[in-house]
Amino acid sequence: MTDMPKSVDIHEEGPREGFQIEPGPISTEDKIRLIEALAETGLHHIQACSFVNPRVVPGWADAAEVVAGFRAREGVDYTALWFNGNGLERALAFRDKLHITGSISLTASEGFTRKNLNRSHAENLEAMRKQTALHISHGVPVERIGVMAAFGCNYQGDITTEQVISTLEDGFAIAAEHGATIERISLADTMGWAAPPRIERVVGEVRSRWPDQKIGLHLHDTRGLAVANAHAGLRMGVAQFDSTAGGLGGCPFAGQKGAAGNICTEELVMLCEEMGIHTGVDLDALIEVARMAEGIVGHVLPSELIHAGSLANFRRAAA
Amino acid sequence: MTDMPKSVDIHEEGPREGFQIEPGPISTEDKIRLIEALAETGLHHIQACSFVNPRVVPGWADAAEVVAGFRAREGVDYTALWFNGNGLERALAFRDKLHITGSISLTASEGFTRKNLNRSHAENLEAMRKQTALHISHGVPVERIGVMAAFGCNYQGDITTEQVISTLEDGFAIAAEHGATIERISLADTMGWAAPPRIERVVGEVRSRWPDQKIGLHLHDTRGLAVANAHAGLRMGVAQFDSTAGGLGGCPFAGQKGAAGNICTEELVMLCEEMGIHTGVDLDALIEVARMAEGIVGHVLPSELIHAGSLANFRRAAA
Repeated sequence: MTDMPKSVDIHEEGPREGFQIEPGPISTEDKIRLIEALAETGLHHIQACSFVNPRVVPGWADAAEVVAGFRAREGVDYTALWFNGNGLERALAFRDKLHITGSISLTASEGFTRKNLNRSHAENLEAMRKQTALHISHGVPVERIGVMAAFGCNYQGDITTEQVISTLEDGFAIAAEHGATIERISLADTMGWAAPPRIERVVGEVRSRWPDQKIGLHLHDTRGLAVANAHAGLRMGVAQFDSTAGGLGGCPFAGQKGAAGNICTEELVMLCEEMGIHTGVDLDALIEVARMAEGIVGHVLPSELIHAGSLANFRRAAA
Repeated sequence: MTDMPKSVDIHEEGPREGFQIEPGPISTEDKIRLIEALAETGLHHIQACSFVNPRVVPGWADAAEVVAGFRAREGVDYTALWFNGNGLERALAFRDKLHITGSISLTASEGFTRKNLNRSHAENLEAMRKQTALHISHGVPVERIGVMAAFGCNYQGDITTEQVISTLEDGFAIAAEHGATIERISLADTMGWAAPPRIERVVGEVRSRWPDQKIGLHLHDTRGLAVANAHAGLRMGVAQFDSTAGGLGGCPFAGQKGAAGNICTEELVMLCEEMGIHTGVDLDALIEVARMAEGIVGHVLPSELIHAGSLANFRRAAA
């Protein structure tokens, strides 16, 4: 049990994941309201928007208005997502407000890279070389390597640990070519293939290979195992997780239109706090915000915890 | 990892838990259809009904018709639930078809016993003495002690391991008085208070105290942690779980009317199988049956897995 972290960093991605997939329309005001409310719960990392092509992702056509509109809270890092130079330019316009860092984003499954990006792995490496150079030329530090489909892929099946390691080696080679200092590795269960033994195996091997890197997990609850996977990750010493309030988001990939999205932030917080791992998050405040998110999207969100409520009131009443 | 079981026994309680809580009405034919379909998936234990007062639980007014009506499959134990002599008599009428064993059912929380049964713990012990005598006088073996609210209680707050141990000691004393040989202990997270460290602590202490007893877990997903709790239980050597297909059921207790029910059978099966633990269940067949259950109750069930589908088709396509 000595591997267990004392505290975890939670990166809240509800606004970005949720509003890109909701059939919408969701008003700019509601997006701002959610981002501001999330920042009041003790979360220190909030992914506020995605600077993507509005024809592809109409839900984020108002990304600039959202970022311009929200009141930033001291001590909170607001991040954004982008996939190309145009997106980066749009993000850089908010350099004073957004925490802008670059990522080398790869996929352990060539099948997924082809289907999702219409590129081979080699072409994607080339694209990431260019993007890394672009980031660095704009003074944007590139600190992270992300590996999508690190635990399995709808198009390619199970993914071996060797594929994950080899993908990371490609990422580190790109970083080295461009003088970027990688500080953390993010492993994404993009399509909900992970189960605890796979988490243990992949995290264990990655940690052995790069013992100085921080490891983060981006878990999806596609098949209901996300919280068990987080439990396995915590036991392996993982101290950074991406998640979404209420389980906002979904799964846009092959044959899974009705599937759940990311692990719910509040269930992750409850898991950690009950394990004695500090999150800094006020769980009851977060539950209220996730309920607000449910009102904004206008349908029931997958989180069980926001429908039952936390243990705090019961504990207080019983004390 | 040596504690991990090679196989687990899953007790499917979907029909009983589900149909007692659905606002209904659900036809006798649909109940029979679900029970028969569940038996085709490889499940070996199915709780088919509850012989309770129809004025209190109108959803099970047709318990006798359901049991009379379903076609029993060889090798499957069909069980029922009852709380008094009248219920036992109704069950005994189907002695040829039902697997009838008795249970000493206690609660680690006196607050819950008072609210749920309108009895003190001492009064409940007295009632269980009478019920044990009644079972034995009918030739019904009493093999199990069940402890409800073993991990926490909406009316009493956190439950200590000592309270669970002391409740079990009361149960073993009743068994000894009546010459009953207890073979297994079932620990129920009746109101969704458990988290992995608590599962580890309680299961560990119970196992140390009664090393020869089989330990089962009855988990509710009230706050989204059921699968993580099952993971913790499996790591502790727990080899019997109660669960419900699709997550049928709910939580009738204090302030949680909208809360989720039991751990989903199919998510439990996926967890076990991905951990290399044999369940004997055909996951894809079970997913189809859980989808049928969703059709029968007429609303979305909490299971994520039945909405995403298993990995099997993707694995086959990728092979």
